[in-house]
Amino acid sequence: TLEEVMPGAYGELLDVRNRLERHYRDMQDIEFTIQEGRVWLLQTRTGKRNGPAAVRMAVDMAEEGLIDKAEAVRRVKPSQLDELLHPMVDPAAEASAKPLAQGLPAGPGGAVGRIVLTPEKAEERAAAGEKVILVRTETSPEDVHGMHAAEAIVTAKGGMTSHAALVARGWGKTCVVGCGALEIDPAAGTVTVGDTVLREGDVLTVNGTKGLLYAGELPLIVIDPERNEWLAKFLGYCDELRRLGVRTNADRPEDAAQARRFGAEGIGLCRTEHMFFGDERIRAMREMILAETPEERARALEKLLPYQKEDFKGIFRAMDGLPVTVRLLDPPLHEFVPHEEAQIRELAESMGKDPETVRARVEQLREMNPMLGHRGCRLGISYPEITRMQARAILEAAAELRKEGVDARPEIMVPLVGHVAELQDQKRIVLEVAEEVKRATGVEDLPFLVGTMVEVPRAALTAGEIAREAEFFSFGTNDLTQMTCGFSRDDAGSFLPLYVERGIYGKDPFQSIDQAGVGQLVALGTQKGREARPGLKVGVCGEHGGDPDSIAFFHRVGLDYVSCSPFRVPIARLAAAQAAVAEKA
Amino acid sequence: TLEEVMPGAYGELLDVRNRLERHYRDMQDIEFTIQEGRVWLLQTRTGKRNGPAAVRMAVDMAEEGLIDKAEAVRRVKPSQLDELLHPMVDPAAEASAKPLAQGLPAGPGGAVGRIVLTPEKAEERAAAGEKVILVRTETSPEDVHGMHAAEAIVTAKGGMTSHAALVARGWGKTCVVGCGALEIDPAAGTVTVGDTVLREGDVLTVNGTKGLLYAGELPLIVIDPERNEWLAKFLGYCDELRRLGVRTNADRPEDAAQARRFGAEGIGLCRTEHMFFGDERIRAMREMILAETPEERARALEKLLPYQKEDFKGIFRAMDGLPVTVRLLDPPLHEFVPHEEAQIRELAESMGKDPETVRARVEQLREMNPMLGHRGCRLGISYPEITRMQARAILEAAAELRKEGVDARPEIMVPLVGHVAELQDQKRIVLEVAEEVKRATGVEDLPFLVGTMVEVPRAALTAGEIAREAEFFSFGTNDLTQMTCGFSRDDAGSFLPLYVERGIYGKDPFQSIDQAGVGQLVALGTQKGREARPGLKVGVCGEHGGDPDSIAFFHRVGLDYVSCSPFRVPIARLAAAQAAVAEKA
Repeated sequence: TLEEVMPGAYGELLDVRNRLERHYRDMQDIEFTIQEGRVWLLQTRTGKRNGPAAVRMAVDMAEEGLIDKAEAVRRVKPSQLDELLHPMVDPAAEASAKPLAQGLPAGPGGAVGRIVLTPEKAEERAAAGEKVILVRTETSPEDVHGMHAAEAIVTAKGGMTSHAALVARGWGKTCVVGCGALEIDPAAGTVTVGDTVLREGDVLTVNGTKGLLYAGELPLIVIDPERNEWLAKFLGYCDELRRLGVRTNADRPEDAAQARRFGAEGIGLCRTEHMFFGDERIRAMREMILAETPEERARALEKLLPYQKEDFKGIFRAMDGLPVTVRLLDPPLHEFVPHEEAQIRELAESMGKDPETVRARVEQLREMNPMLGHRGCRLGISYPEITRMQARAILEAAAELRKEGVDARPEIMVPLVGHVAELQDQKRIVLEVAEEVKRATGVEDLPFLVGTMVEVPRAALTAGEIAREAEFFSFGTNDLTQMTCGFSRDDAGSFLPLYVERGIYGKDPFQSIDQAGVGQLVALGTQKGREARPGLKVGVCGEHGGDPDSIAFFHRVGLDYVSCSPFRVPIARLAAAQAAVAEKA
Repeated sequence: TLEEVMPGAYGELLDVRNRLERHYRDMQDIEFTIQEGRVWLLQTRTGKRNGPAAVRMAVDMAEEGLIDKAEAVRRVKPSQLDELLHPMVDPAAEASAKPLAQGLPAGPGGAVGRIVLTPEKAEERAAAGEKVILVRTETSPEDVHGMHAAEAIVTAKGGMTSHAALVARGWGKTCVVGCGALEIDPAAGTVTVGDTVLREGDVLTVNGTKGLLYAGELPLIVIDPERNEWLAKFLGYCDELRRLGVRTNADRPEDAAQARRFGAEGIGLCRTEHMFFGDERIRAMREMILAETPEERARALEKLLPYQKEDFKGIFRAMDGLPVTVRLLDPPLHEFVPHEEAQIRELAESMGKDPETVRARVEQLREMNPMLGHRGCRLGISYPEITRMQARAILEAAAELRKEGVDARPEIMVPLVGHVAELQDQKRIVLEVAEEVKRATGVEDLPFLVGTMVEVPRAALTAGEIAREAEFFSFGTNDLTQMTCGFSRDDAGSFLPLYVERGIYGKDPFQSIDQAGVGQLVALGTQKGREARPGLKVGVCGEHGGDPDSIAFFHRVGLDYVSCSPFRVPIARLAAAQAAVAEKA
C-alpha cells in the first residue's frame, strides 16, 4: 500500500483529502500524481455515488456535524431514492447482458419472472407460488387482478400515463410500457422481438428504472426500505424541513398501509371506480347502467352499497386518524360495459334483457370525446342515486368505525366540477345522507368534509365562487393539463414526443407540470379560493404530486399538500424538503 | 265608423293617442270604453308588432324626429330581423296546421319542398328544378353538396352546433336538427313519425325559426331583404352607433359576397378544410395523408395547391379591399379518410397501395378524443409541407390578384395554438414562403398578417407571450368553451339539456357565451395580449359572434370585431349597436 511505500506522501494526501472534503463538505474524487516523493493534485470533484451511498453519506456527515440537515437533504437527488425503495437489477450483471427490447420506464425497480400473457394466467400461476411477468399489448381496468398478481407489467403500447403505467406506479410495481418491438400473440402464447421468439413460461428480467427487458434471469439486488436506518433518519430530516404535506393516492387498504409506512399523512385521492370491477360488483354495476327506471337503478346500487362500504372501512381503518379523500364515481359509464357482440349477448341473457336493448344502451354510451363527455359529477347530477349510494357507503363506514373507536376522517370529493352549481347539487345530496346516517347509526360526532377536484379550467377560473361551497380543493392536474393544453393523454403520443424533442414544451407536461400554463391556473385557483374562504385546504392529486420539479412549484404556490403513489411518498417528502430549503437559501 | 257616429269622442281619442304615443315614444295598444259619450281609458301599452313592422315603425318615427336613432335601434329585437332576412311560414296558415314533429330551430326561416333522403338525390332533383328538403339522420362534410342543393335540412340527431346546424346557419338555410321522432330509412325511402309514413317525394314544410315540421305545403311569406329600404336605413343607424366591427365566417365566394351585401366588413373565419372535399381534391388529400415519405406528401400537396389557390382567389376577389382571415388546416386527418372496409379497399386499389397498409394508416389515425388530438397547428408542425402549401396558395393568390388590381388582404390564422413556440414554428414557414412568393411573382407590396386563433385555454393564459408573435388574435369560442368547461360539443347532448333545465348554466354555453368562465379567458387574453402588443387586433369567430347577448359581452370586453354566419351579419350589426347604446345610457 501507499502507506507502507511512501508514508510521507500518504500522510500528506490524507491531510489534503480531509481539508478538501471539509471545504467542499462532500466526498471528493481526487486525482493526484506523486513525482519524486512530492504530491501533485491534478483535480478534485464531488464523488459520484449510488442512492444508498448518497443517503448514508449525507446522514453520516450530518450526524458528525460536518454539514447541517438542510445540506444533507440537498445532497440526495430525489431519483436516487428509487434505488432504496425497489429491488434493482444488479448493475454489474446488467453491464454485460444484451437487452431484448427497450420501452418507457413506467415503474422503477427490477423484477424477474415467467412470462404470462393474460391476467387470468397471471393470477393462477401467482396463486401457485410462481413469479410471473404480465406481458400485454395494453391493459384495461378489467386486467387489474392479474396486474396485481404479477411481479412486473410490460406493455407494447401506451405512454407514461397509460393505464398500466398509472396502476403500476401506484403499487410501486416494476413496469415497462410502450415497448413497440414486442409482437404479442396470446392465442399462440408467444412474444416475438425481431428474430427472438419467447413463449409463455419463459423467464424474463425487467428493469423498470431504465425501461429494459432481458431474456432469461439476471440477479436482483433486494433491499428492504423499512429496515434502512439511514433512510429513516434521512427522511426524518426531510420532515423537519418541509412545509408541504405529503399524502398518497391509494384505492386499497394494502396500498394505503404501505404508503403510511412510507410516511404518507393521509390519502389525497381514493378512486372509487376500481371498486366496481370484482365479479359480483361489475354485474351489479352493469345492472345499474342498464337500468331503465330510477327504481331499477336504485335496486342495483343497493347491491353495490355493501361492497363499497367494506372497501371504505378497510381504507379508513388503515388510515386511522388521518384524512382520506374519496372521489365520487368519475369515469364514463361505457368503461363498465362490454363492447363485443358475444359479451353483449351474454350480458343480456344473464340479466334477462333483450340483446337489442343492451346493444342500444352500449351504443348510446359511446362518445366522440369521452374525456369531455358524460362523466365526473355529470353522472351524479344525471343519476343522483349514484351519489346517494356512494355518500351512504362512505358515511356509514365512517360511522360504524367510529363506534369501534377508529378515527375515520372522510373528505368527500366531487369530481369534474366546472360550475359552483354542480357542487351545490352534489353537496346537498351528501349533507342529506349525512343526516340520515347520523339518525340511523346514532353517531352524532361524524366529522367529514365536502370538497371538489379542480380539474376543469373553468373551476380554477371561478374558484372564488366554488370555494364558497367547497371545504377543500384538490387540483387534478392530469385532467387540468389535458383541458388547459388541449392534449388528450391517450392520443398525445402522436405529437407530444415531437413537441418535447423540438423544445416546444421543455418537458412532457403530463410528467412535470407546465408551470406557465396549467401552473398559472393552479396559482390563480388557490389564490381566488383562499380569498373566498380563508384557510381553504388545497392539495394536488395528479401524477405531478410525485414529480420533484412540480413539487417545488406547488411549494412555491403555497399548496397545503401533494398526493402521490405510495412508492413516490419518500421521494415527495425529499422534494418538498428541498423546495423548503431552496426557498430559505 | 266612430268618426261618423261620435265625432267628439273620436277627436278626443285621436288627441289622447297622439299624446300617449309622444309620451311613450312608441305605438300604443289602447283599451278604452265610451260611456254616455265620455271616453274612459282602461289601459295603454306598447303595441306588439312583427319584425318588418318593428323596423318600419322605428325608422318612420326616427325620420319624423319622434325618437332619436339610438331609440330606434333599441326598439327592434335582434331576433326580429330574422323575419326580414328569410322567407317565413305564413303564421295565419300555421296557426291552424298540426305539426308533424318538433326539433331544434337550427336555421331560421321557412321552406317547402319534396323530401329527399340522400345528398345525391338532393342534387339530382334540384338540378332538375325541383325544390327539395334533405332529411338525414345526421350530416357529415361529404353531404355538403346535397345540403347546398336543398331548400332546407332536417336531421333526426344532433344539437344546435352539429354539422348540419353550423353549415345551414352559415348559408342562411332553414334547418331543423335533433328531431328525434323521425325514423329515417333511406333504403325503403321512408320517414316515419309515429303512425305517419312519408315517402321520398312527399311534400314537407319546415319552420326553422320554431323547429317545426308539417306534412304537406303551407304558404310562405317571401321577402327580399336587399330591396327593403327601411331595413337599409335601420342598419345604417346601427352602423352609425356601433363600435364593434362585424365580419363574417365564409368559406366560399358566394357566401362572402352575400355577407358583404349584408354589410360584413371582412371575413373573420375562412375555413380551408371544406376546400378538400371535391372529387379530385379529396383524392389528392388522401394521397397526402397516406404518403409514406415527405416527398410523396409534397407531391400530393402539389396537386392540391392549384385548387386552394383558385378558392382563395374567388374569396379575395369577393372581399376586394376587405380583410380575409384564413385559418390553416384544422381538423384531424381521420375526417378525410374512409372508415368502411369496402371504401378502404377501393381507395387502396385506386392508389396502387396494399389494403393492409391503408387500413393500418386509417386505424392509426383513430383517436380516443379527437377534439384534443392531432389537429390544428399540431398537423402543421408534424407536416410542415401542409403549412407551406397553404401559405403558398394564399400568398400566390393574393399576389396574382394584386397584379390584376384587386386589393387582397389575407390574414393567415394558425389554429389551436397553446404555446408561443407553436406559433413561432408556423409563422417562420409562412414568412419564408412570403419571401419566395414575392421573388417569384415580383409583387413587392404584398400586405398580409400572421396571427392566431385563441381557442386553447393555455393560449388565453399565456396571451402576453403569444402576442409578441401574433399580429392578431381571434377567439375561437366554440373550442374555447369545449376546453374551458370540459364539454365535448358532440357529446354534451347527454347532459347539457339537463344542466340548462336545472339552471346550472343559465343558457347553453355553446349558444351564448359563458361570461363568468369562458368570457373571463376572453377578457384576460385580450388584456394580456394588448399589454404585450398595444393595438393588437382582437376578434371572435365562434358561433357566439352571432349571438346578441354574447355580442354585448364582446363589446364590453373591448374586442375589435365579431365574425358570424352571413345571415347573422345584420343581426350582429344591430346587437353591436344596441351594446353601444346601452353603454351610453
